[in-house]
Amino acid sequence: MSAVTCQISVSLDGFVAGPDQTPEDPLGKGGERLHEWAVATESWQRQHGRQGGERSTDSEVVDELLAPVGAVIMGRRMFGGGDGPWDETWKGWWGEEPPFHEPVFVLTHHPRDPLPMEGGTTFTFVTDGIEGALEQARAAAGDRDVAIAGGASAVQQYLAAGLLDELYLHLVPVLLGGGERLLENVGDPVLEPVEVVASPAVTHIRYRVRN
Amino acid sequence: MSAVTCQISVSLDGFVAGPDQTPEDPLGKGGERLHEWAVATESWQRQHGRQGGERSTDSEVVDELLAPVGAVIMGRRMFGGGDGPWDETWKGWWGEEPPFHEPVFVLTHHPRDPLPMEGGTTFTFVTDGIEGALEQARAAAGDRDVAIAGGASAVQQYLAAGLLDELYLHLVPVLLGGGERLLENVGDPVLEPVEVVASPAVTHIRYRVRN
Repeated sequence: MSAVTCQISVSLDGFVAGPDQTPEDPLGKGGERLHEWAVATESWQRQHGRQGGERSTDSEVVDELLAPVGAVIMGRRMFGGGDGPWDETWKGWWGEEPPFHEPVFVLTHHPRDPLPMEGGTTFTFVTDGIEGALEQARAAAGDRDVAIAGGASAVQQYLAAGLLDELYLHLVPVLLGGGERLLENVGDPVLEPVEVVASPAVTHIRYRVRN
Repeated sequence: MSAVTCQISVSLDGFVAGPDQTPEDPLGKGGERLHEWAVATESWQRQHGRQGGERSTDSEVVDELLAPVGAVIMGRRMFGGGDGPWDETWKGWWGEEPPFHEPVFVLTHHPRDPLPMEGGTTFTFVTDGIEGALEQARAAAGDRDVAIAGGASAVQQYLAAGLLDELYLHLVPVLLGGGERLLENVGDPVLEPVEVVASPAVTHIRYRVRN
């Protein structure tokens, strides 16, 4: 069976978003610092239709991260648009052509029709929980992997349920001092570091989760 | 001038000791799991007068960690013996010949005469704060380094004061779920990963602190 994976940038003090998060500022105060390492790369700039950026160890990591998996699952807050019943004019943060290019399943308590976008991304809204979303994502992915994109709560739920096979952390040497923690309420899974890639900016550690 | 360094094992969720710490159990629940990687090495076993243990990447790291620096600073709780005025029968956790073999300065609010031990360790009790302890430790260390041994509070105080030059973390892939956090109340220092050593058990990351 294909693997369920997650890759996510985390501060050295354990946060995937900074303090004072709002619906308009889901990364919170200082949270954009978690992603500067990726934005600095040639891979990220190219993927966003721009010139420049650095070819580096981090760029190679980003190339790998940008390769489509089979399907993506994300939490409601990562998709955005606020809590409660849907404002159907909200189509995510990513414009008309989101960078996923594959089926994306959004965990929510509020039903909404599937939302096809340009470039191969379709957002499907799943109201029957993480297992239901995973079942649909696996069916869409075939023999390819399913990626849990975030945020913290979605990752925590899959990890706590023993459904995550791989956690690839990008450990960014900043201290946010508060915000949204990644590794809490997840029980005590066995994590094995199976690959470490070091750059001057960030330490990438891939953990296999023994379920 | 010589450097002020700290090396410490930390769980993936950021703790240097587990929950439910007591004076008799300063590592708290599960805290010993932070040190299993070191105890498993041939270097650690040899240093404790035993046979066996593994020759490995981690063993080489332990060899390096066990090399004396010039002087050591530790917090009162790490030295142990409970809070308040000293019970002078308490001579630390380490027996008659502690493994430091160099001057050790203990941060405390309660005066006590210096305590010479076998093997070159002398515990000196410093009541005038972290700067006073560092001054004494630097004088004792000469051109060699001063190591902040722990616990979390001592490391935090030196880091927050801009007095720490290097933080060498041994990132252990366990989740303690609670306990004593290392990286809080330290402000926002600039940390540069300058060396990463990966083993199947733990990821060692050396950060230079830009003060």
